[in-house]
Amino acid sequence: MADNRPVLAIDVGGTKIAAGVVDRRGRVVALDRVPTPQGRRVNADTLWRTLETVLDRVVAEYGRRRGFAGVGVGCSGPMTWPSGEVSPLNIPGWVGFPLRKMLSERFPRCVVRMHNDAVTMAVGEHWRGAGQGVADMLGIVVSTGVGGGLVLGDRLVNGASGNAGHVGHIVVEPDGPDCVCGGKGCLEAVAAGPALVRWARERGWRESQRKTPTARDLSVDAARGHEVASAALRRGGVALGRAIASATALCDVDVVAVGGGLSQAGPLLFEPAEDAFRTHAGMEFMQKVRIVPATLGQQAGLVGAAALVLGEDTYWPGD
Amino acid sequence: MADNRPVLAIDVGGTKIAAGVVDRRGRVVALDRVPTPQGRRVNADTLWRTLETVLDRVVAEYGRRRGFAGVGVGCSGPMTWPSGEVSPLNIPGWVGFPLRKMLSERFPRCVVRMHNDAVTMAVGEHWRGAGQGVADMLGIVVSTGVGGGLVLGDRLVNGASGNAGHVGHIVVEPDGPDCVCGGKGCLEAVAAGPALVRWARERGWRESQRKTPTARDLSVDAARGHEVASAALRRGGVALGRAIASATALCDVDVVAVGGGLSQAGPLLFEPAEDAFRTHAGMEFMQKVRIVPATLGQQAGLVGAAALVLGEDTYWPGD
Repeated sequence: MADNRPVLAIDVGGTKIAAGVVDRRGRVVALDRVPTPQGRRVNADTLWRTLETVLDRVVAEYGRRRGFAGVGVGCSGPMTWPSGEVSPLNIPGWVGFPLRKMLSERFPRCVVRMHNDAVTMAVGEHWRGAGQGVADMLGIVVSTGVGGGLVLGDRLVNGASGNAGHVGHIVVEPDGPDCVCGGKGCLEAVAAGPALVRWARERGWRESQRKTPTARDLSVDAARGHEVASAALRRGGVALGRAIASATALCDVDVVAVGGGLSQAGPLLFEPAEDAFRTHAGMEFMQKVRIVPATLGQQAGLVGAAALVLGEDTYWPGD
Repeated sequence: MADNRPVLAIDVGGTKIAAGVVDRRGRVVALDRVPTPQGRRVNADTLWRTLETVLDRVVAEYGRRRGFAGVGVGCSGPMTWPSGEVSPLNIPGWVGFPLRKMLSERFPRCVVRMHNDAVTMAVGEHWRGAGQGVADMLGIVVSTGVGGGLVLGDRLVNGASGNAGHVGHIVVEPDGPDCVCGGKGCLEAVAAGPALVRWARERGWRESQRKTPTARDLSVDAARGHEVASAALRRGGVALGRAIASATALCDVDVVAVGGGLSQAGPLLFEPAEDAFRTHAGMEFMQKVRIVPATLGQQAGLVGAAALVLGEDTYWPGD
């Protein structure tokens, strides 16, 4: 008898904790989310109890008796993989927190599978989004950071330590700004939202405002034709296009799906990215690459987390 | 009964055409080679007959009756893959030449498998060289061009069109020199032998000599302490280190094996490469990467060609 049970999917980030029930067609049939607890007093236990509350509500909404095919999780990195001890940069209360183990104890009859949230986003887009039916795809998330996931030959690439897909640390400006990773000139150091905001403010954009504006404000102003804001997004797009050229030279993918908050800027980001890509992508096999917007929006992470369980050996190497 | 037959291995490049018999342990037990015919009058047929002559001699040397497990081929790119119509940039007489098909007709009882010669070099190093026992490895050849091959999760990565591994077209200087590929600032445009020679000559190195000096001359002079020659190799090493940082961020490999003529320069190339890599590789998982010299030398290509046949599904996706 075919297992028709859905997956309990979890997406833990620095801003929100989301959980949902995702069916085999990749539809989110139940969903709940809360802001991630912030502040110095938030410890590992507070965070865990917050997650449990969300899980309880989703399970209650969906119906306790029906059961799950498994639990799929995306969580901000870094983490040890596949063991799933998480130390998210943007969730200081968890350092080496054994999230996968805790969830296995909480759901003892379920397999629990976990990956970096940029990877689950890419997996979601491959399974049911912009990369559906494509054997070789790179997914990129441009947001507070820049991350990604790589699918080659219809298999998720994990790499030697589960860290493959860190597209945000491809070098795009060898003498460029220092990166939080300790490196220099990484895509993330140039093109992540906060980097673009900083760059624009240094050039006079909203510099007199007391409250720090966001990358969303930057996109809005760029869309209105503000010169510095437009230049900032162009700068981000060029960096993105360069990184995509390097990645596709090495990995020969057909599709690059770009999501995350900053991708909402649309052509303001995609057009300079495409131009920069064409400047560097001379090889014939690179000219077929399609750079496309991700299609699942905020649900990509939950859908991808579910795919870790439902995608058979496409997205998980076997326990 | 186990098949103990060796492989007839072929390595076709712009400088030489080599053929050998490679046994299951990766030892080259027979070998012959000739210079690749040069000049305008050399047509597709001349080249094919030259290859046939070499093959006849190797088969005769090894013993006609014993037979082969298959034929493995590395050939200069580009080529269509896996169909194996080759149009090597450095062998103008072959344009769309159906090398794989011709060999299949010449050896009707054998499987014939073929790949880009930079890929077979990387495969050789993974099978029996510097990457032996390593699941995730990048092999790089720095020579007249810069090429490579990628093994992830103990499988050769082919990519959507068989072109994965083109590490020479990772962007290392966004505003750098034009590349033969049509792109700009590629590793190959900066760090390939002829690019380094050109750079050094523009700065006075052997500029008054009528005969164009080679990358080998450059290495020799650098080893003797010649300032411009040393700077040229340093420039190549830095570019290489940057490309390795980008590649390992994306693919999370454990070992990067660097071979090809220019790698003979040793520390003059590897030290600046290592330094540049450390400048950019901030992520913890990247700090474990080992950049090592390839160990098989000129035989890597033949050994890798044999591995396409002998390596089961590690290096070939199934016919």
